[in-house]
Amino acid sequence: MHGHTDSRATLPEAALRDLGSQAFQGLGLTPADADEVVNLLVTADLFGLSTHGMSRIESYGERLEVAGIAARPAIKIERVASALVKVDGGNGVGPLVGMKGLKAAMEVAGECGIGMALVRGSNHFGPISPYCHIAAEAGFASMIGSNATTTIAPWGGSDARLGNSPLGFGVPGHDGAHFMLDMAMSVVARAKIRNALKAGAPIPDTWATDKQGRKTTDPAAALDGFLLPIGGHKGYGLALVVDLFAGLLSDAAYLTHVKSWVDAPDEPQNLGHFFILIDTRRLGSAKWLADRMKDFAAILHGCPAAEEGKPVIVPGEIELSNMARQREQGLTIDASVLSLLKHHAAKLAA
Amino acid sequence: MHGHTDSRATLPEAALRDLGSQAFQGLGLTPADADEVVNLLVTADLFGLSTHGMSRIESYGERLEVAGIAARPAIKIERVASALVKVDGGNGVGPLVGMKGLKAAMEVAGECGIGMALVRGSNHFGPISPYCHIAAEAGFASMIGSNATTTIAPWGGSDARLGNSPLGFGVPGHDGAHFMLDMAMSVVARAKIRNALKAGAPIPDTWATDKQGRKTTDPAAALDGFLLPIGGHKGYGLALVVDLFAGLLSDAAYLTHVKSWVDAPDEPQNLGHFFILIDTRRLGSAKWLADRMKDFAAILHGCPAAEEGKPVIVPGEIELSNMARQREQGLTIDASVLSLLKHHAAKLAA
Repeated sequence: MHGHTDSRATLPEAALRDLGSQAFQGLGLTPADADEVVNLLVTADLFGLSTHGMSRIESYGERLEVAGIAARPAIKIERVASALVKVDGGNGVGPLVGMKGLKAAMEVAGECGIGMALVRGSNHFGPISPYCHIAAEAGFASMIGSNATTTIAPWGGSDARLGNSPLGFGVPGHDGAHFMLDMAMSVVARAKIRNALKAGAPIPDTWATDKQGRKTTDPAAALDGFLLPIGGHKGYGLALVVDLFAGLLSDAAYLTHVKSWVDAPDEPQNLGHFFILIDTRRLGSAKWLADRMKDFAAILHGCPAAEEGKPVIVPGEIELSNMARQREQGLTIDASVLSLLKHHAAKLAA
Repeated sequence: MHGHTDSRATLPEAALRDLGSQAFQGLGLTPADADEVVNLLVTADLFGLSTHGMSRIESYGERLEVAGIAARPAIKIERVASALVKVDGGNGVGPLVGMKGLKAAMEVAGECGIGMALVRGSNHFGPISPYCHIAAEAGFASMIGSNATTTIAPWGGSDARLGNSPLGFGVPGHDGAHFMLDMAMSVVARAKIRNALKAGAPIPDTWATDKQGRKTTDPAAALDGFLLPIGGHKGYGLALVVDLFAGLLSDAAYLTHVKSWVDAPDEPQNLGHFFILIDTRRLGSAKWLADRMKDFAAILHGCPAAEEGKPVIVPGEIELSNMARQREQGLTIDASVLSLLKHHAAKLAA
């Protein structure tokens, strides 16, 4: 993980976009492709998801430099039925391939009411909520998932055989207040366990197992073991579902066939994604939907809080509020990320 | 809940289907509609999901008798786009309306590669895995959900504002070994808390809150409070997603607008469901899919177990094994359910 002890730099969104585009061009991408990747990652930073934003220049850059990711991929799009599209990302940068998948699914969904893109030959594609946001802005509800390197043991097992696969959903809200849920299947991220280890504190036994697959409160044993999925067998099942739709049905790698970008940065991962888009305009008027979404949020906000001063929130609100604030005040990123962007951008000028 | 201390009766599947069909005809359904409902509920019993099988004759029958559910609904199906269908169930019996939704979605998915039915005007539609099984047998992968009466508080809230909405997924497996996941969003069902209360045992503080929304280990306080969703804010978010797709986008009731069939059995609930079907034959040959699904299961089965004698299982295996056993040995149901079926069936003869 990247630089949480770093100093931080603040710059306007447009400046970060420009620099980011030059950096990815410096790494060999075309200007249009670089802009596409940067749009996704900057949106992640705007949402406050800095671990999945421009900081990814580190791992993406490393793999682009050793040709573990193709800078100029031959992306193939095949419409196998009127509402169903298969995409082969040609081992391109994840957010570039992901955006091709999203756009292809939106296009057929616009025609058919619902549309799906199944993507293979891809890499880490960023967080999911920026895709849901782009879809929601265009009037589409979305269900999006990706598989991932194996870090989780099957329920009752003691070997990492499935990924902590992210799954996301979006529904267009009233006045831009889109519902967005973006979640992985583990109870917590590994970073939380690392923090406990640093603090010398035990962890709840619901977070992870040791390497024998036994529950543990020892953060060191947990880091040597496996993350536990939410709801035990339920989260295990959901992680399998994401891998089935994103990996198995898309003809990508799945389960232990997914290569680790840490252990083998120079090899294609063949990650898979799925994008299901629903054109909400076919279901009712914009006012009909906005009224219902407003009422939906009001019912949740109107719920008395269990703890004073901690009101109920609707998924997506934190991200949208972070975006509004950072658009006004500038984007804060790690100084080391800024240096790395400048380093790669300098190659373009050279 | 129904009769867990009852004596049990065993009868052949065909006999249960016949009796069930007569019972629902006795309650006013047409023979074809009664068969459709019974097919779904008997499959639930075959899978071992007896709380969601023919035992539902109790609540369905009670509501049919007071016209809280329409025995002869006017079900409307509107194709709003080539791959998108809206269904109004006319307040019919849930599994009847659900099967209309499933079939409509399968039909458009067969044409377009993916298809979706959004259903309103429905009632409790049984468990989800029987729908996934029917879809998988026909070559379709599925994502299916329904909203439900409010029993869960929003994350951080202290009032029931959302349902323990079920969500299910299916993918056709090799030789009928279909992947099927059917889950609700709570950590445990209320029945487990009732059992703890009877046993005088405390419950883990992750299962439920008291009515102020505070974690509790007291089963009595928990039964007076709210079920906790899996993964905290993640399960809360997922339950909202199901309600948004099944209820809000389908023009059904959602959140607190869903009526309780316990408090108001004579009023329409206007529950909603969604059915997303994907025609796997558009993605590759039957052999391609079967080979991948076989390999997928083998990777999971090959994982060393954390506890000896408890091998890793793939979701759906328990249900399919129960079905094979009960098809051979007969179906076991509560004697009181059998009596109730006979009671309603007798009206038909009268």
